[in-house]
Amino acid sequence: METEILENIVFRWLGKRRDDVLQGAGVGIDNAALKVEDKIIIASSDPVTGAIEYLGWIAVHVAANDVAVAGGEPAWYLPIILMPPSTDRDELEKVCREMHEAAESIGASIVGGHTEYTDTVTRIIVCGTFIGPLVSDRYISSSGAKPGDRILVVGYVGMEGTGIIARDFQDRLRYLNEKSIKEAQRYIKEISIVEPAIIAAKSGLVNAMHDPTEGGLLGGIHEMCDASNVGFRIYRDEIPLRDSTIRICKEVNVDPLKLLSSGTLLISTPEKEVDILIERLRETGKVVREIGEIVKNPDERILVSKEGERRVGRPIRDEIWKLWS
Amino acid sequence: METEILENIVFRWLGKRRDDVLQGAGVGIDNAALKVEDKIIIASSDPVTGAIEYLGWIAVHVAANDVAVAGGEPAWYLPIILMPPSTDRDELEKVCREMHEAAESIGASIVGGHTEYTDTVTRIIVCGTFIGPLVSDRYISSSGAKPGDRILVVGYVGMEGTGIIARDFQDRLRYLNEKSIKEAQRYIKEISIVEPAIIAAKSGLVNAMHDPTEGGLLGGIHEMCDASNVGFRIYRDEIPLRDSTIRICKEVNVDPLKLLSSGTLLISTPEKEVDILIERLRETGKVVREIGEIVKNPDERILVSKEGERRVGRPIRDEIWKLWS
Repeated sequence: METEILENIVFRWLGKRRDDVLQGAGVGIDNAALKVEDKIIIASSDPVTGAIEYLGWIAVHVAANDVAVAGGEPAWYLPIILMPPSTDRDELEKVCREMHEAAESIGASIVGGHTEYTDTVTRIIVCGTFIGPLVSDRYISSSGAKPGDRILVVGYVGMEGTGIIARDFQDRLRYLNEKSIKEAQRYIKEISIVEPAIIAAKSGLVNAMHDPTEGGLLGGIHEMCDASNVGFRIYRDEIPLRDSTIRICKEVNVDPLKLLSSGTLLISTPEKEVDILIERLRETGKVVREIGEIVKNPDERILVSKEGERRVGRPIRDEIWKLWS
Repeated sequence: METEILENIVFRWLGKRRDDVLQGAGVGIDNAALKVEDKIIIASSDPVTGAIEYLGWIAVHVAANDVAVAGGEPAWYLPIILMPPSTDRDELEKVCREMHEAAESIGASIVGGHTEYTDTVTRIIVCGTFIGPLVSDRYISSSGAKPGDRILVVGYVGMEGTGIIARDFQDRLRYLNEKSIKEAQRYIKEISIVEPAIIAAKSGLVNAMHDPTEGGLLGGIHEMCDASNVGFRIYRDEIPLRDSTIRICKEVNVDPLKLLSSGTLLISTPEKEVDILIERLRETGKVVREIGEIVKNPDERILVSKEGERRVGRPIRDEIWKLWS
């Protein structure tokens, strides 16, 4: 959604101002922090309108990720399932079973929601809300990154997009064997960052967290730096990319750093905490890398590679759109 | 949604069982009660797919009502707005302004959500979630009605349906003047039961609350009695109906007791508390009536009128469908 529409229409009026809203609706903010007397809960709503395969699985994880990056435990999920009247029982059952499996995999409970046949939708969609209590005594915002902080990445970059390409544009992948393609297709499901986000939140060592989605890793870093009013310097060679991601992106000519990257967690942390934090995050079994640092000048947004340094702008659209359009 | 599908598919698997879920998803349950350490919050999700006029207003109130009947303060709202790509700015603006006005009218804040243009919807829809803290030390369920309880009704019955008929089937209302029709059309907006529900919850005097929607007052009483495993005896002449509702329903041949009734609150309360509770509820300026009592036998569902007693079954569909189909 365009920032202009959000600012001038959607976020123009927001009901009553309440003191118990610690973080509310705003551009680039994906979760709310709400005070229940002396406790804080995190809530986030996300629709999934684009997915056909893994719809239930994806719906649960994208909303859960948004709660976890704020330092909340994604505990309670309320899905609204809307289906065209022609939807068959098996299709609904598949979505519900996937939601169950996804919720169970992160220890969450489905506590409400709504299910409806309606001719206002052309295919089955899920609008879900995750709610949960904080895992530590403070919530973490994407706006907390500070100059001098180190930028950590947990999880390989661009996996979600790689998986979608391997599934939907298989015919364009002439140099990959069947086995590699099948493996890459499974990346679509590896989108949860709840475990590392909770470890990071509990550690008390992070200044900001964010989960890059559209616009990929670079989009995510820009968003975090916009919210924090800082800049960045990142090192191309430090960014964790799977071989298959590199090869698939090369074949279809997309930039893996600007490609759908759910499943990657971005962390901004003070330099002195880096080693201990990396050690704790590695307990998840996921790849953890220090890829660069936060700088004071918000206009300084630099990617360093063997070819030298270059300024990188915010991706206008995700690279996946090159293939979809 | 059919009970069979809910039981066998939607509520079959619900992720992990968690001890902090005091009331979770289930047939006839419209809200979740969740434990945040020693506090309890209420959450409820509701889509509005059918409304064109007052969409934003209705979306906020229907979700808020479901939180309030459980004894929660509807404090924080997260709307997901989905629009066809052709939706113009004014239409979105109207929905957002109505949501703001509705939220402000009940002291709530819009704290998150999501806005998206998508070709998966054929008209603008809102999927909203309300969350809020309890206003007293316990949550109220629709399943708490006890034999001997008195049934109170707050707010005139069938107003929502009357308003919709006055707007959409005006041509069939030959015996009503323009002024009465215009007045009846405004009933559509009088759907909030937050104020009386909160007063009732704070009083500590109620055993169960419910807000009748589809199937009208009778549908709502059946739902409450099903959930509580009890029966009822209600008195036709005690049910508060506006003259315009009686006249409009007569003209189009629908039963006002089985007609859309958002804006009506149903309460089940011990006999000894009735007088004090009625006094407190009248502070809202709304009509409050004792219309009958809860009986032990779940099969005893009786409507008493001048013509005598008769058993009343659960409405299969709301009366409004007679006109829509």
